[in-house]
Amino acid sequence: MPTLSDPEIKQLLADPNYAVVSTLEPDGSILSTIVWDSADDDALYVNSAIGRRWPTNLQRDPRVTVLVQEAGNPYHFVSVRGTATATTDGADDHIDSLTKKYIGEDKYPFRQPGEQRIKFAITPTHITYVKR
Amino acid sequence: MPTLSDPEIKQLLADPNYAVVSTLEPDGSILSTIVWDSADDDALYVNSAIGRRWPTNLQRDPRVTVLVQEAGNPYHFVSVRGTATATTDGADDHIDSLTKKYIGEDKYPFRQPGEQRIKFAITPTHITYVKR
Repeated sequence: MPTLSDPEIKQLLADPNYAVVSTLEPDGSILSTIVWDSADDDALYVNSAIGRRWPTNLQRDPRVTVLVQEAGNPYHFVSVRGTATATTDGADDHIDSLTKKYIGEDKYPFRQPGEQRIKFAITPTHITYVKR
Repeated sequence: MPTLSDPEIKQLLADPNYAVVSTLEPDGSILSTIVWDSADDDALYVNSAIGRRWPTNLQRDPRVTVLVQEAGNPYHFVSVRGTATATTDGADDHIDSLTKKYIGEDKYPFRQPGEQRIKFAITPTHITYVKR
């Protein structure tokens, strides 16, 4: 199986390519939306505000799939199935680092009053990598 | 709820924008991959070859989510949750029409010997539309 430490996958995930995160609704159907992501050799990381729909899904059922596609090249993508572990520790720093990666600013500019950020580490159980 | 007949959604789906199709694996985890799609006012349509992984998932469990993102604009997308109905009738014509839409050729050039095409009509149960 491909891994997150494969050089081409690392580069795809280091570049500001958007992710489609898919989580399980309470009725077992699939919710998909667009998110920012980061990665290291062990996990993919995504971030949201507590109470929104997809992080609430993940807090109930940690099974998740994230597909990251290269901007401008639909047939270069990695699809990571895995299990998410939630933490609020470092979640504010993480959303700021994602802000830097995706829009070049130092601080996340879209914060709502009172919102609490949550970060998920996604440990892969299966990775598919396609480049053609 | 937005519908497939909303003009902006119709245009997004008429343009050759790629779709992320997410289906349920036998163990309940989510499989996501990239596909072509078409649409009319009633349904989204996707196409594959019998025996591949995601169509096999759909034949077992028809719950599916398709997210279609505008090329070059990650925050313009429609996410359609729905139920898939499979048919082989018209599946060959459909893959040829998708070929025209996405790569401008009249006949699907990637057919494998002996493969049988299958077409799925996805009737929406929930649509999310984002443009910003």
